[in-house]
Amino acid sequence: MRARVLDATLASLGSNGFSGTTARAIAQVGGFAPGVIYYHFADLDDLLVAALAHTSESRVRRYRSELSGVGKAATAVEVLRRLYEEDSAVGHIAAIQEFYAGARPGSRLAGQLAVETRRWEELGEELLTGLLRGRPLASLVRVKIAASAAVAFYIGMETLTHLDGDRARPAQLFDQAARVAAVFDKIPRMPVS
Amino acid sequence: MRARVLDATLASLGSNGFSGTTARAIAQVGGFAPGVIYYHFADLDDLLVAALAHTSESRVRRYRSELSGVGKAATAVEVLRRLYEEDSAVGHIAAIQEFYAGARPGSRLAGQLAVETRRWEELGEELLTGLLRGRPLASLVRVKIAASAAVAFYIGMETLTHLDGDRARPAQLFDQAARVAAVFDKIPRMPVS
Repeated sequence: MRARVLDATLASLGSNGFSGTTARAIAQVGGFAPGVIYYHFADLDDLLVAALAHTSESRVRRYRSELSGVGKAATAVEVLRRLYEEDSAVGHIAAIQEFYAGARPGSRLAGQLAVETRRWEELGEELLTGLLRGRPLASLVRVKIAASAAVAFYIGMETLTHLDGDRARPAQLFDQAARVAAVFDKIPRMPVS
Repeated sequence: MRARVLDATLASLGSNGFSGTTARAIAQVGGFAPGVIYYHFADLDDLLVAALAHTSESRVRRYRSELSGVGKAATAVEVLRRLYEEDSAVGHIAAIQEFYAGARPGSRLAGQLAVETRRWEELGEELLTGLLRGRPLASLVRVKIAASAAVAFYIGMETLTHLDGDRARPAQLFDQAARVAAVFDKIPRMPVS
């Protein structure tokens, strides 16, 4: 039942927006009584923080399992493109955008967003470390910072797509990334001592 | 007086957030009567759209004048770093983030955000065209798409910084960009026929 409340919260964020996601709206989306929410969560804020952690953790797990062992940049881009479409389809992106839009700086929710951002940065660091291993470029790129740039880029791309609904933007960006990845993959790896 | 109302709106977004930026709050920040707003603007929505266009146009103008004629990537990064600090200091970033957070998809404000995003993408295209002229990389990068990626990245970086107030993030990202730019500037330009 707890999971049903979390799923209803995420669905409500997508259809009602952050400010429209009240206990009543969540109960209506999920088809349960509003009291169910307060049986499982202290308050709406508590529920929102849990819903954010729930969707972020489950998507990071999926990304990590799909990306593990990927050593070619071109493959990574194709996997990321597919997962991005999945993020869209399951409502993850719409919900995340509402969290970013609705969280006030300094709030508990903003604190949880910082935790989740860090989780995605760590995933980016793992991927980049694998791709850069033995490449001459490795000395130029600080993995931690490049991963943080990649996460910032994703958030910005999602903000723009969420607002104007233009699916061509991410499609073109993945196309461009694929072209760069193909060139990157031609750089020979140096033997690592 | 119209300009004073616009400035007060931007200042109120920074201090009161999007939902706290009512006609009353704007009048209080600006030190004028709420009636002044309705003398110059049809309604609050009209004022918000005008304030967004105002800050975006004025900052694009400043960026364009500072970046015009810049041919080295390292110089471009230093100019961008300085302008970003200026954006922060004048409250442009805080206001823009509130616009992105507060605009509902499909609203007039979201439409204006799309117009302003395009304005920044055009500036990015001008800069990238200048930097890539005659470089072998030019065949790999589609300027329009790379500029759109750069704008998405900026928006995401600002969202993260706005929420957690961590100024180290943009500082480190500009440092990383400076290292890449220094390498980029060593790629010789080919003579253009």
